[in-house]
Amino acid sequence: MAAVEQFDVYELEKQVENYLRSHNAEKISELLDGAQLNDIISLIERTSLKRGAVIFRLLPPERAGLVFDALDPYHQAAMVHALGSDGVGSFFEDLGAEDRAMLIDELPPEVAARLMRELDESDQEYTNVVLGYERGTVGRAMSPEIAEIYMDMTAREVCDLLRAQHEDLETLYTLPVIDRARYVQGIVKMRDLFLAADDVKMSELVVDSPTVSVNDDAEETARWFLPLSLLAVPVVDSNDKLVGIFTFDEAQDIVESEDTEDSARQGGSEALKTPYLATPLITLVKSRIVWLLVLAVSASLTVQVLDVFEGKLEKAVVLSLFIPLLTGTGGNTGNQAATTVTRALALGDVHKSDILKVMWREVRVGLMLGAVLGFLGFLAAWVFFGIEIGIIIGTTLLSVCTMSATVGGAMPIVAKTVGADPAVFSNPFISTFCDATGLVIYFLIATSVLGL
Amino acid sequence: MAAVEQFDVYELEKQVENYLRSHNAEKISELLDGAQLNDIISLIERTSLKRGAVIFRLLPPERAGLVFDALDPYHQAAMVHALGSDGVGSFFEDLGAEDRAMLIDELPPEVAARLMRELDESDQEYTNVVLGYERGTVGRAMSPEIAEIYMDMTAREVCDLLRAQHEDLETLYTLPVIDRARYVQGIVKMRDLFLAADDVKMSELVVDSPTVSVNDDAEETARWFLPLSLLAVPVVDSNDKLVGIFTFDEAQDIVESEDTEDSARQGGSEALKTPYLATPLITLVKSRIVWLLVLAVSASLTVQVLDVFEGKLEKAVVLSLFIPLLTGTGGNTGNQAATTVTRALALGDVHKSDILKVMWREVRVGLMLGAVLGFLGFLAAWVFFGIEIGIIIGTTLLSVCTMSATVGGAMPIVAKTVGADPAVFSNPFISTFCDATGLVIYFLIATSVLGL
Repeated sequence: MAAVEQFDVYELEKQVENYLRSHNAEKISELLDGAQLNDIISLIERTSLKRGAVIFRLLPPERAGLVFDALDPYHQAAMVHALGSDGVGSFFEDLGAEDRAMLIDELPPEVAARLMRELDESDQEYTNVVLGYERGTVGRAMSPEIAEIYMDMTAREVCDLLRAQHEDLETLYTLPVIDRARYVQGIVKMRDLFLAADDVKMSELVVDSPTVSVNDDAEETARWFLPLSLLAVPVVDSNDKLVGIFTFDEAQDIVESEDTEDSARQGGSEALKTPYLATPLITLVKSRIVWLLVLAVSASLTVQVLDVFEGKLEKAVVLSLFIPLLTGTGGNTGNQAATTVTRALALGDVHKSDILKVMWREVRVGLMLGAVLGFLGFLAAWVFFGIEIGIIIGTTLLSVCTMSATVGGAMPIVAKTVGADPAVFSNPFISTFCDATGLVIYFLIATSVLGL
Repeated sequence: MAAVEQFDVYELEKQVENYLRSHNAEKISELLDGAQLNDIISLIERTSLKRGAVIFRLLPPERAGLVFDALDPYHQAAMVHALGSDGVGSFFEDLGAEDRAMLIDELPPEVAARLMRELDESDQEYTNVVLGYERGTVGRAMSPEIAEIYMDMTAREVCDLLRAQHEDLETLYTLPVIDRARYVQGIVKMRDLFLAADDVKMSELVVDSPTVSVNDDAEETARWFLPLSLLAVPVVDSNDKLVGIFTFDEAQDIVESEDTEDSARQGGSEALKTPYLATPLITLVKSRIVWLLVLAVSASLTVQVLDVFEGKLEKAVVLSLFIPLLTGTGGNTGNQAATTVTRALALGDVHKSDILKVMWREVRVGLMLGAVLGFLGFLAAWVFFGIEIGIIIGTTLLSVCTMSATVGGAMPIVAKTVGADPAVFSNPFISTFCDATGLVIYFLIATSVLGL
């Protein structure tokens, strides 16, 4: 029961790997017996699915249940696949309704149906409540397992109720209080209940709480909810009646998996479902190749633009020297704006209706950035390549920066408005767009200055 | 006490803004009186510092304290600045020790010293404990305000202790249990204490808990801690003795502010301390211009590379048509690898010592991506520009993809190893690097194929 160091998992991993290689199941069981649950969970999530299943099978049954509960649905599904639905029935039973719903999404329908049939009636009912809401909504991520606590109950009565029901409840820390029509009156914190005298009424302990609706977007709600440092928030249906509770750890899971997806998409690839080192090479290639192809095909636009101006390029080959500098700077300016606005959208600092405000800000920021870079570019190009090239480079930088900042700032909002992921329209697409447009601007300016 | 909708803050904002414009302080007070605390907090954090201070001053004193507590240190400092240290003394007193330490970091030393002098002795002591640890460590973010709970205490005794001390304690939900030498034996969850009979000993309720050390990196610890869905974790000093507790909401704050910083840096700018729409234009320009200049100067490397090959370009101007396509594809491939590895590092899926594994994976992934793109590029260029150009484009794509994926995958790990922020070395720098190196490869291949 001694305290453990937090990064022991790397040590554990190395040892388990060694024993796996020498097929020494006994030693692995021994290691797993002594290890912290959290370390076993990261061990399984960091390794390949096959190895994860081997490790899971070597766990003593009581630990296996706790580990199964803590795994993400993708890994849970892999365990069901490896152990068969008979082997995991009891673990499935012990999951919360919302976790069961998420696992069902990952399972083949016939396996899910078999597992569901084995549940007792109330568990089936709870699970069906959650499954009844659309994916990606709060209803799908909430827990319907809540106690019925009314304003006129005393602390003593609530304690007795909780003692009787605690095994079925999602959380005891945040207790929604309702009136007889199930309208939420606020919440009682366990802390206050714990400190209260036996005869204190809930109406004296209740505090205001925001509520969320089953139909709210789960990701938006999670991002709004986490910074509030609340443990849970009551969930109401479309008639404003209490139906469940949404907890900080659900919010946490949602934000983490969305962040992984966003980060992958900003880099122009699909998110991985397994840890990087455990992912087969071919899966890595697949997660990237489609985006690369799409981007390369869009980039072939730049070949066409340059093809149009090939005649001018032949007369002044010096113009081609600046192509990567100009497209690069445009891309960078666009990305700066896009990343800032994407983040502001995620944090709720910017709203869809703010698009004109954002564009007007970015036009001016782009002009200022372009003025500085353009002036320096003008000086440098003048010194090395003469005044005409200086003027061309300076003016192009000014125009490209202004355009890129504006487009970069507007893109994530446009994406969100049409229902696409703002992260998708960020970095790679903006770069490609700025490349092509920037080149057109460049050659138009060059043509008029040089009189080609 | 009725439930409120979650996005009411936009409505509130509009109304407050209208009344601010008409200088109708009375109406604003009225609005603030009826609003949810959480909405008032986001209202202040989303608006300009000046307006935020006006709103804060219009709050009734008891609400002002709660709002002050929930603001981030940057905004707290702004309120101190606006109200003077006399006006906020009592709010300062009510903060937790770790929040007080964070606010002190943002204040001018003489203001901080004055506020500190007004605290009572035990608060001064707690604050000094936290201030004694280096910035960015767990010690700086933990709360030293914990109860002394021993293994042989009964539930009754612990309840009495908590009733007496609860106002000074950071959390009641996770209670570290120690032996007489202050070594952590595990934790008792309030839930279990609440359900336990009066004479149950802590040794029966205690469960294993990981611990963290005061000297651990706060960001790493927060990222490791959040996915565990724990409410708090005991903090020990270098002798392994209990000194404080690290809670999920501290972890939450740390990860959010680090994510904002990382996301800004991946886009090539500095993070903003105020919400996007509340940030003055000149601050936006400043947060971006340095990076743009550094990147533009590095990008001038591409001008030099092309200058070296200008003679060849003159002989075959067609080569210049593919420059943006090739550099773009290289940049995209590098960014995919870099984003994936940066995220894997943040999640703990990849460790610094994995660098060779990562590079070997990326060489092969890059080769596969390059083979596909190169083959398609070869076909397309062959059809439109002839077999020689086809061979050049195909071979260049193959080489550039392999190099970019390898460099992109290695960069974040190298950055982390030398103590830099992995996000900094991501997208923009990799693009620039891949641009210059890719061009050299391109012209070397072109020269040998065309015999220039």
